[in-house]
Amino acid sequence: MPESLATHPDRLLPADPGTRRIARSLLERVQDLPIISPHGHVDASVLEKDTPFPDPAALLVTPDHYVTRLIHASGVGMDRLQPDAGAREIWRHFCRAWPLFDGTASGYWLRTQFQTVFGLPGELSAETADASFDAISAKLAEPGFRPRELFKNFNIEVLATTDDPLDDLASHRALAADPSFHGRVLPTFRPDAYVNIAHPSWAANVERLISEASDGGKGYRGYISALENRRRYFVEHGAVSADHGVRTPATLKLDDADAEGLFERALSGTASAQDRDAFEAHMMYQMARMSVEDGLVMTLHPGSFRNHHGPTFEAFGGDTGNDIPFAINYTEAVRPLLQDFGTAKDFHLVLFTLDETVFSRELAPLAGFYPSVYVGAPWWFLDAPDAMLRFRSAVTETAGFSRTSGFIDDTRAFCSIPARHNASRRIEASFLARLVAEHRISEDRAHELIVDVVDTAPRRVFKL
Amino acid sequence: MPESLATHPDRLLPADPGTRRIARSLLERVQDLPIISPHGHVDASVLEKDTPFPDPAALLVTPDHYVTRLIHASGVGMDRLQPDAGAREIWRHFCRAWPLFDGTASGYWLRTQFQTVFGLPGELSAETADASFDAISAKLAEPGFRPRELFKNFNIEVLATTDDPLDDLASHRALAADPSFHGRVLPTFRPDAYVNIAHPSWAANVERLISEASDGGKGYRGYISALENRRRYFVEHGAVSADHGVRTPATLKLDDADAEGLFERALSGTASAQDRDAFEAHMMYQMARMSVEDGLVMTLHPGSFRNHHGPTFEAFGGDTGNDIPFAINYTEAVRPLLQDFGTAKDFHLVLFTLDETVFSRELAPLAGFYPSVYVGAPWWFLDAPDAMLRFRSAVTETAGFSRTSGFIDDTRAFCSIPARHNASRRIEASFLARLVAEHRISEDRAHELIVDVVDTAPRRVFKL
Amino acid sequence: MPESLATHPDRLLPADPGTRRIARSLLERVQDLPIISPHGHVDASVLEKDTPFPDPAALLVTPDHYVTRLIHASGVGMDRLQPDAGAREIWRHFCRAWPLFDGTASGYWLRTQFQTVFGLPGELSAETADASFDAISAKLAEPGFRPRELFKNFNIEVLATTDDPLDDLASHRALAADPSFHGRVLPTFRPDAYVNIAHPSWAANVERLISEASDGGKGYRGYISALENRRRYFVEHGAVSADHGVRTPATLKLDDADAEGLFERALSGTASAQDRDAFEAHMMYQMARMSVEDGLVMTLHPGSFRNHHGPTFEAFGGDTGNDIPFAINYTEAVRPLLQDFGTAKDFHLVLFTLDETVFSRELAPLAGFYPSVYVGAPWWFLDAPDAMLRFRSAVTETAGFSRTSGFIDDTRAFCSIPARHNASRRIEASFLARLVAEHRISEDRAHELIVDVVDTAPRRVFKL
Repeated sequence: MPESLATHPDRLLPADPGTRRIARSLLERVQDLPIISPHGHVDASVLEKDTPFPDPAALLVTPDHYVTRLIHASGVGMDRLQPDAGAREIWRHFCRAWPLFDGTASGYWLRTQFQTVFGLPGELSAETADASFDAISAKLAEPGFRPRELFKNFNIEVLATTDDPLDDLASHRALAADPSFHGRVLPTFRPDAYVNIAHPSWAANVERLISEASDGGKGYRGYISALENRRRYFVEHGAVSADHGVRTPATLKLDDADAEGLFERALSGTASAQDRDAFEAHMMYQMARMSVEDGLVMTLHPGSFRNHHGPTFEAFGGDTGNDIPFAINYTEAVRPLLQDFGTAKDFHLVLFTLDETVFSRELAPLAGFYPSVYVGAPWWFLDAPDAMLRFRSAVTETAGFSRTSGFIDDTRAFCSIPARHNASRRIEASFLARLVAEHRISEDRAHELIVDVVDTAPRRVFKL
Repeated sequence: MPESLATHPDRLLPADPGTRRIARSLLERVQDLPIISPHGHVDASVLEKDTPFPDPAALLVTPDHYVTRLIHASGVGMDRLQPDAGAREIWRHFCRAWPLFDGTASGYWLRTQFQTVFGLPGELSAETADASFDAISAKLAEPGFRPRELFKNFNIEVLATTDDPLDDLASHRALAADPSFHGRVLPTFRPDAYVNIAHPSWAANVERLISEASDGGKGYRGYISALENRRRYFVEHGAVSADHGVRTPATLKLDDADAEGLFERALSGTASAQDRDAFEAHMMYQMARMSVEDGLVMTLHPGSFRNHHGPTFEAFGGDTGNDIPFAINYTEAVRPLLQDFGTAKDFHLVLFTLDETVFSRELAPLAGFYPSVYVGAPWWFLDAPDAMLRFRSAVTETAGFSRTSGFIDDTRAFCSIPARHNASRRIEASFLARLVAEHRISEDRAHELIVDVVDTAPRRVFKL
Repeated sequence: MPESLATHPDRLLPADPGTRRIARSLLERVQDLPIISPHGHVDASVLEKDTPFPDPAALLVTPDHYVTRLIHASGVGMDRLQPDAGAREIWRHFCRAWPLFDGTASGYWLRTQFQTVFGLPGELSAETADASFDAISAKLAEPGFRPRELFKNFNIEVLATTDDPLDDLASHRALAADPSFHGRVLPTFRPDAYVNIAHPSWAANVERLISEASDGGKGYRGYISALENRRRYFVEHGAVSADHGVRTPATLKLDDADAEGLFERALSGTASAQDRDAFEAHMMYQMARMSVEDGLVMTLHPGSFRNHHGPTFEAFGGDTGNDIPFAINYTEAVRPLLQDFGTAKDFHLVLFTLDETVFSRELAPLAGFYPSVYVGAPWWFLDAPDAMLRFRSAVTETAGFSRTSGFIDDTRAFCSIPARHNASRRIEASFLARLVAEHRISEDRAHELIVDVVDTAPRRVFKL
């Protein structure tokens, strides 16, 4: 009987037998280390309340737009993938589309979950859709499948969430105060909806921000002080980073009067597209300044055209699988910020990209000079085996291992976290094993390096 | 005696013995499947008339600007590679330059043809130029080397040609009506010379188009109706796709009045460069609309700077080996079209690129969401072993296998068709074998997938 | 006892045993060939005067901004890496940072030097910093470690330096005239500081150039004639190439009146940023014209944002590790030059890039058509094992081997020259071995090709 793909001990390891032997031994070194997840999208209240997951579709399909997108591409209307379309029906669509996930990162994570978390043997199929739905549903009703129990079994040490600046962080506080919960669940300051003046509710957000959190000041100064205050609140609640999902990597230093002018035009609804770009670029400069002051690691995620298909966005909102990357250029864009803060003490700036071309061309050279800059792990579409190998190949020869951030799972799919981190560890082992096999590093040193990239790097870069 | 390169059973397969064993078995599964060629440049009348090929240079060198370009780069003037320079002389230049083709895709295809089609042992050389010229010439005089006999021996099931919208398609009609000919030779609607207002004969083309094919209307409306009519004519003659060799991937929806204005300025010779771009972008939108209506698959080939070397173009015309790719960006460019037609029922849009960076960054994410979008196979300069592997690696982890078009040979070189398809099958086997060896897909599933990518995908994507 | 990394006979060779066997045999063919270094930054006077190298830090750390940059990124202030910070102190910083170089190209070259040039066993470390400093210092005092003796032991046949157009080339002349020195040390004409009007001393440079070298003419005409005269002087002193470190690959043909206007505006300090770009682009056109006339090979190095971190530049000057690449586009940019000189007899134009994306997209297609164009070897950040393999993979399938320049070490680090060339030979052997193992070229032919790429290509492309 053939070994299952999802549990094969050599999955994702290189085919060459000599290299595989080295990779196995490197993997063994880190396989059981706890999970450090410094950036993701799990909801803290799920862990606080520990309510059972409702059903297989709500757990594994509908919230994961990596998954719904490919079902949609196969011809299933987005309306039939909405939560109100019926969990069992959605699951059937998913099972029918399952063969299309072969070779994809999502397919790999899902298969691993099915087998290692839910004990489903074999592959999904249209024929067994109801059976697999029922099997997973039964599991979800068991106490061992409640979020906190999974959290423990997944061996998660640190899990960062992504939060609105005005979130009261009550769930994080409750979890931190609960002696029965042993993990660290940390908030992350994500001010996009307060910084991007094209966001539909920007003006309302800003008004609420100033009214709830400013030091009494109004207008632009009140806005800046409110952001500073909320960052401080996040720091007090354990946050280690502030995350920025910007359109482009542009940064810009404006004087206060110009910034104020932009801010007022934006509030009055007269800002142009240039104003929007300039304000966002200026705010990234301001966010860096605040990070230098309050110590929050700054992470930057540019280069995604959000909600590319207007009709889908209008009908079903954002995060519906049609955020499409585009080409970016970091070198000139990030310079204004780095001129002033690139060598600032203890400032950490993690630069992510969906455009692979910047890894060797821009990010490795930047991180190889600026003590503040770290190359972010391959993110979104690129957090897959081959893409992760391309990343290490593109970055290492210029910047080594120490200037990279460690793995980021960036996921809403709670049950995929172990599969994702395990896949990443297998790829790190594969990459290092090749360098050992090619006599570029010693096997002893590779054993140190794999612990460094899997465990030490995220702790060091994210100040954990 | 060493196995010849061109006939070695393991050519192009991965070196690792375990992976090679898997690749061999996958290749065996598809090695003898018929050839489906949904895009290429063979002339249908060659098959209709079944006239013998004139000589080795006219068959293998002069019409193939992949071949002449590299001879030219080695220092042979383009004038000495023109048909009137003498077949035997051209062949001698080619034989002298033959060592320069080592490692190139063209070299691989040529070597395969020499050995498997013409039975030439060993390598070409300056010393044996006349002997190889005579040997191939002798073969070409044999009945077995007439186009129809080769077509049958090559095991071609479907061959699409590329045709002018006003072509009467008489050759296609004759072949379809001929009970002694068993393949399908399908026309493809290629309206570039009627859509690109910078084309030297655009105005004359358009005038002829309207006069021959409009529904009686004049001007822009007559032009649109004539294009619709000619597409219908192509559909009636078996066409399955419309192909567009555009400068950039831009698309644009203009209202009729604006489109008409552009059209009139173009006819009167007062259109600007911006007008040219806007009109082409608008016409791609119109072509998508027509494809939604008449079912022709739409293929887009942007990103080549045609006739880069002016003096060569002036002296020897186009297709002289100096079309040079440049960077393109699909994400924003194709959005106007996809807003309106991205989820249209049965619309198929195949996006090709000469800029590899868009595979992982843009095309895989687009095809992974839009049911209409398929990632075109690696095309032109990229239809080579390593480039095809990079393509699969860049695309699969995001979009799987089902969102890709299947292989396109895109060739004028009739005798290279089997070598090209065989090379593609070897690379598909190599890629899948690696995934199997790394326990990312099962070997059974890989046997299904290779049939899918080699045979089912082109039939499905091109509606064959 | 494990084999040392730096001396392992199979270092950098592919892991697959069959491929490695082929690579070993290819490497053996070229391992002992003399070094041809047609582009680098060693100072000719070092060889002329043959003065001992002062200390390990001055030899291996401070002049090499590949090395200082990564130490700086680890948190050591640039002030502590300046020559006046104390050689032993700098060496200690370097030894502490040594583990960060694992996996980098610099680390590989350094490790090789330590072991094969200086006989240091094992790895550097903070603990043994003083011991390794003393050991290398002792070596440097020995006669065998004087520059000329090293030059001989390194088996260097040709070493090109990089020189100011007004350099009197006395060192080159002295070396050429010295019967006791057997290598060829050739000057390279590098006019950046006379061509880039944004250079801080441009006006002063130009004034001096005209006064010292023009044919009596003043202004723009005097400037052009002075450049022509100095090129002639370089040719007379053995120069084979003129090297151009430009911002972008733009080229432009201006008429004399326009060029003169730009030149005058630049001298009067009223030139705009557009003027700067236009003048540089025009001067590249002029440099090509001069190369066609005087035969100097033209090499182009665009795409680096020099001195990215203003404060570091202000405090410590250029070449401090913060030149950061950016995206470039050659296709349109280089067209004006190639229109007029692309097929000029004996013109050689070597195009380098720090943006890998142009290799398959633009450079291979350009070099595959234009007899003048050669694809420059992977340069700066890309002259590392994986990057060199990506280069060959990206270029070969379109342009073969004959259209590439051969390896360029581009180094100021004299003692790294053998390690760099040896690494390059190992990678060429690895790439060719894979093609042999995949039955894409024959092993016999690979033995010819490796001699061609290692030895014949640089001699042919650089007219040596």
